Amino acid sequence: MNSFGRRFRITTFGESHGPAVGVVIDGCPAGVALDIDALQHEMDRRRPGQSKITTRRDEADQLEVLSGLFEGKTTGAPLALMVRNQDQRSADYEHLRDAYRPSHADYTYAVKYGHRDHRGGGRSSARETAARVAAGAVAKQLLAPLGVSIVAWVSQVHDIVMPESNTLVTQAEVEANIVRCPDAATAERMIALIDQVRKEGDTVGGVVSARIDGVHAGWGSPVFGKLHAELGAAMLGINACKGFEYGSGFAGTHLRGSEHNDLYYRDGERIRTRSNHSGGIQGGISNGEAITFRAAFKPVATILRPQASVNAAGEAVTVEGRGRHDPCVLPRAVPIVEAMAALVLVDAWMEAS
Amino acid sequence: MNSFGRRFRITTFGESHGPAVGVVIDGCPAGVALDIDALQHEMDRRRPGQSKITTRRDEADQLEVLSGLFEGKTTGAPLALMVRNQDQRSADYEHLRDAYRPSHADYTYAVKYGHRDHRGGGRSSARETAARVAAGAVAKQLLAPLGVSIVAWVSQVHDIVMPESNTLVTQAEVEANIVRCPDAATAERMIALIDQVRKEGDTVGGVVSARIDGVHAGWGSPVFGKLHAELGAAMLGINACKGFEYGSGFAGTHLRGSEHNDLYYRDGERIRTRSNHSGGIQGGISNGEAITFRAAFKPVATILRPQASVNAAGEAVTVEGRGRHDPCVLPRAVPIVEAMAALVLVDAWMEAS
Amino acid sequence: MNSFGRRFRITTFGESHGPAVGVVIDGCPAGVALDIDALQHEMDRRRPGQSKITTRRDEADQLEVLSGLFEGKTTGAPLALMVRNQDQRSADYEHLRDAYRPSHADYTYAVKYGHRDHRGGGRSSARETAARVAAGAVAKQLLAPLGVSIVAWVSQVHDIVMPESNTLVTQAEVEANIVRCPDAATAERMIALIDQVRKEGDTVGGVVSARIDGVHAGWGSPVFGKLHAELGAAMLGINACKGFEYGSGFAGTHLRGSEHNDLYYRDGERIRTRSNHSGGIQGGISNGEAITFRAAFKPVATILRPQASVNAAGEAVTVEGRGRHDPCVLPRAVPIVEAMAALVLVDAWMEAS
Amino acid sequence: MNSFGRRFRITTFGESHGPAVGVVIDGCPAGVALDIDALQHEMDRRRPGQSKITTRRDEADQLEVLSGLFEGKTTGAPLALMVRNQDQRSADYEHLRDAYRPSHADYTYAVKYGHRDHRGGGRSSARETAARVAAGAVAKQLLAPLGVSIVAWVSQVHDIVMPESNTLVTQAEVEANIVRCPDAATAERMIALIDQVRKEGDTVGGVVSARIDGVHAGWGSPVFGKLHAELGAAMLGINACKGFEYGSGFAGTHLRGSEHNDLYYRDGERIRTRSNHSGGIQGGISNGEAITFRAAFKPVATILRPQASVNAAGEAVTVEGRGRHDPCVLPRAVPIVEAMAALVLVDAWMEAS
Repeated sequence: MNSFGRRFRITTFGESHGPAVGVVIDGCPAGVALDIDALQHEMDRRRPGQSKITTRRDEADQLEVLSGLFEGKTTGAPLALMVRNQDQRSADYEHLRDAYRPSHADYTYAVKYGHRDHRGGGRSSARETAARVAAGAVAKQLLAPLGVSIVAWVSQVHDIVMPESNTLVTQAEVEANIVRCPDAATAERMIALIDQVRKEGDTVGGVVSARIDGVHAGWGSPVFGKLHAELGAAMLGINACKGFEYGSGFAGTHLRGSEHNDLYYRDGERIRTRSNHSGGIQGGISNGEAITFRAAFKPVATILRPQASVNAAGEAVTVEGRGRHDPCVLPRAVPIVEAMAALVLVDAWMEAS
Repeated sequence: MNSFGRRFRITTFGESHGPAVGVVIDGCPAGVALDIDALQHEMDRRRPGQSKITTRRDEADQLEVLSGLFEGKTTGAPLALMVRNQDQRSADYEHLRDAYRPSHADYTYAVKYGHRDHRGGGRSSARETAARVAAGAVAKQLLAPLGVSIVAWVSQVHDIVMPESNTLVTQAEVEANIVRCPDAATAERMIALIDQVRKEGDTVGGVVSARIDGVHAGWGSPVFGKLHAELGAAMLGINACKGFEYGSGFAGTHLRGSEHNDLYYRDGERIRTRSNHSGGIQGGISNGEAITFRAAFKPVATILRPQASVNAAGEAVTVEGRGRHDPCVLPRAVPIVEAMAALVLVDAWMEAS
Repeated sequence: MNSFGRRFRITTFGESHGPAVGVVIDGCPAGVALDIDALQHEMDRRRPGQSKITTRRDEADQLEVLSGLFEGKTTGAPLALMVRNQDQRSADYEHLRDAYRPSHADYTYAVKYGHRDHRGGGRSSARETAARVAAGAVAKQLLAPLGVSIVAWVSQVHDIVMPESNTLVTQAEVEANIVRCPDAATAERMIALIDQVRKEGDTVGGVVSARIDGVHAGWGSPVFGKLHAELGAAMLGINACKGFEYGSGFAGTHLRGSEHNDLYYRDGERIRTRSNHSGGIQGGISNGEAITFRAAFKPVATILRPQASVNAAGEAVTVEGRGRHDPCVLPRAVPIVEAMAALVLVDAWMEAS
Repeated sequence: MNSFGRRFRITTFGESHGPAVGVVIDGCPAGVALDIDALQHEMDRRRPGQSKITTRRDEADQLEVLSGLFEGKTTGAPLALMVRNQDQRSADYEHLRDAYRPSHADYTYAVKYGHRDHRGGGRSSARETAARVAAGAVAKQLLAPLGVSIVAWVSQVHDIVMPESNTLVTQAEVEANIVRCPDAATAERMIALIDQVRKEGDTVGGVVSARIDGVHAGWGSPVFGKLHAELGAAMLGINACKGFEYGSGFAGTHLRGSEHNDLYYRDGERIRTRSNHSGGIQGGISNGEAITFRAAFKPVATILRPQASVNAAGEAVTVEGRGRHDPCVLPRAVPIVEAMAALVLVDAWMEAS
């Protein structure tokens, strides 16, 4: 299952250490003038090596359009996008050929497929998400003219939680620092923590929050394609994501119905709600309010410390921690969260149109 | 989108106040001797009116098999299951014809479909879940011979949280009381709270926890069909579910990688992990450990109190709270959670076979 | 695979000798006022026992709407339609429990499913097409306001071929006789032949031709969802269909490109073609001209004569020809061909909208 | 809709005059040692410029594997295959920018997509079939160990029909001449005709026949995924295909049921049929006999003669016949027919396993 979406259907391909990573988008509307620079910009937001607190693997992630574009506009044909892999250092992984790295997909892949590419996790590598970001960047360009904007940010790293605020987070604030937390003081603390954790060869997780404005009422489906269920599946499909909540989420379980219900009122031509515990979605369908959700990310499994494990033969081995690692995926998860949200929304929009 | 699953694909039909609710299962293996009493038992666990703390709508939910069964065994043809609706009291809803009930799907349905069945929420009613429970009960019967068992229980109601325990929860403990919390003392407090809330015409939410044992290593897909993403979508697709987490979940964001990683060791013929922060799933694929997850449910929207709202014309109206209501969906959500988990697992099993 | 279509997706259920046959339509637009009498009329055109030249199984095929309709209009929820089986005479089939009837699906079912319902072919019975006709009748009602009309007719029975004509066939002409051939003289000969064949306990096949007017230019897809490929799959999916051709078909292979090409010209606001070898479809997409196709049907396999065969144990047996049989499926295939064409077109229309 | 298949699902991308043409295969089993030379051999059988009777466009069609292969074996990850386009001569098409070439997809594309790549038909070009042949070549390698062999050949070109024969056609006979007709004398006449037609700037069509041996009983589905319906859709999805028949086909309509029925007998451990009017498929499911079918191809639309047409503004124009053309697609259709058949069969096999 390497496809996602129904109307705007993407299929990704490529492994961490193969020749390339790419995506085919089937269902992109025709006649859309694509801003290739903006696509590349999203690739740059996700690419490794962009700051001192991410992995130092160095990839240009230069996007190539293989099909579906003619004279700058989409043709309705499949849009195929690809980046070549460059900085692979496959030899770094030779010592891991048969060992199962703890909390990686090595063992489960071996059981499922028998034959596996041990170099950098192959298909389970976060490298695959480059393809999603490329597709999501196209989706964003379809949503922008509809007035839909998606902003995600790092709201928690380990025990450092960004304080609640009444002002809306802007993309500029998020991009103002390398950890992508819009609160400058919190960001500074997060960066310091990640930098320290990096030196210790360890990793930390946290939470990415997101807010989507401008979604029209009426997107989503009532039973199995509930808009929040699609968003949840999209987020849980991102590497290291362990939890998802929208609107009032887990905290909402502490409210009574009389407190939780969002009361309708008329605001000019629009029907709105006074509170938004619903997170912009009622009965699986958008109601026109802001869509809000949070996604939990565990600390990534690759650490630069020796760990006890077993190999394919079931023998006890030590997985040595060497090479490069990513002390905290949160900053680079931000564009991936936005991309996946964009893919869900563009699909819901096409279904609703 | 009224279908769920790929190999074991279900399509549900029916509304709260239409003639019937049912499901067609496409892809059920042939030659399986179905235990119809066991199917009916699952229906009974979900049906309304089963205790003083649920809605008093009274439905027998007698299951009828329309196709796919011959001499007690499945034939490989579509298995169609149906229950007739009985206690509809459509007149109870006449005053709601044009009003948008707060935090219901009335408004979003009206925007999406124009034409809507206002009686009891139509398709967004929890009544539709009867069809899921029927299908899930079939799925359970396919999983049982593989050694897979699914147990869900109510672990939190409003502010009452069941204490942590080292012993495994059994189905018998869950079914020992009407709130389906396996800790007897906690259950008593929950029941008292729900009963009081019911008298106040209000509602409360909470958390359903689940544990799945016996899943073989190798089920699930690495990229978009991750086993936990499918489980997440399944749970978020249940009415009133606002959040999902598996394994270490949101709490796991407070651990470092060196603490969170589950170390492999050999246990006889099996390769196991010493801890289970992964919740039985690594890289989207089961690793043979117990699968654990939690789902948050908001307090249901129907309360027996007047609420300010608007109608289809945008005029201010008061939605009166009358008729019957369900003070807490948690006890009846338990069999639905189990059913949806069974549907996800049977699909993953068929894909892995 | 008991589903057909992508946007207007139908799933059929039910066997020849089970309790019921039905269909769930997922994706029917909301707000459509369904003419239930017109649906029933299509059921009557297909039902057995309607004339002396069809099977004498007697089924009222009274349609029941189980869901998706409210105050006479579709709600956007799944539309579930069902007919109960009545005249089953299962005992007629007891002698066939283990025997493989020649050119039936008995043997292939036994291999595929192990467990099979031997009574009347179970799921492979033409009875299943009642569900398709019901769904197709709904599709027709969606297409009519767009100006799309579908007419199918019997153009050949065994060696009796209807003469070519320059006038368009009308539904009234088709329904004017029991064999559904619009040429009265030819129809008379066909009826006489079928009646004779019936008395001999034998069967004959033939060809159903169809013409669809009013399809807008731009429906269909260029690569794998070519409109004619979908039509072809739909026709080949009807029991006993052995071949499909559209436009110039097999005969077109005898023309040169310079003869076969359809030249464009302008006709008022429309761009039209002077000839129509393309059969209304170019590159898989409708061009606004009439869509024309032909489907070949073999003589049905059930004959009232003893035939040599084997049973499940591989022993030689004689399949006795007793009970009822359908000497020629062609007349009843006409509404099925129309229904399947309507399903393909409504799907293409929804995709193009 | 640029995807085909359910288990072994391919998605093709690329246009005639874009940078590349390729395919992503999702669902290829892991651990299969791919013979890359054999893949390339199939590409060579389809590539233009291979003989004097095909188009003179010159493409090496050198296959590049972008993902899914590790140490020579498939990994279970998406297998992405690509060929770069080389001999594009886009300028050749500049005079056609707004003109609608007769019986091409120009007009229907313009209506459907608005924006179109006029160079060489873009996505509707037969160039896209290179991607199908690549995927089909992989499918063939999966089928070979199961004993399945697929042979297609040119049995008719315009009015030249290959005589019936009782001996089985071999791949070697088919490949022994450039027209791919296994009867040497007929082939010679066909080649002469095509060469003459080429000189006249015209085109001819014909029929490709195929025979598949070694398919196990039990592949295919009884209702909508009938094996022959899938084969039919696959063939009708090939450019220029106008008709499909299997087994007795259209000719079978002249037989009575008592003549057409294939009688079963026991042959050692196998149950076989004495005749094979069923074409190896009964009730949509393979019965273990040879699968036989025929596909009709019209003369291709590109001719080197001036033709009257209209342009996008609806003005009368003359489409001049210049550049290169393919006088007869039949020889190159042979590997495409085999590829599509292989894709259908591998999907049916995976579903049946």
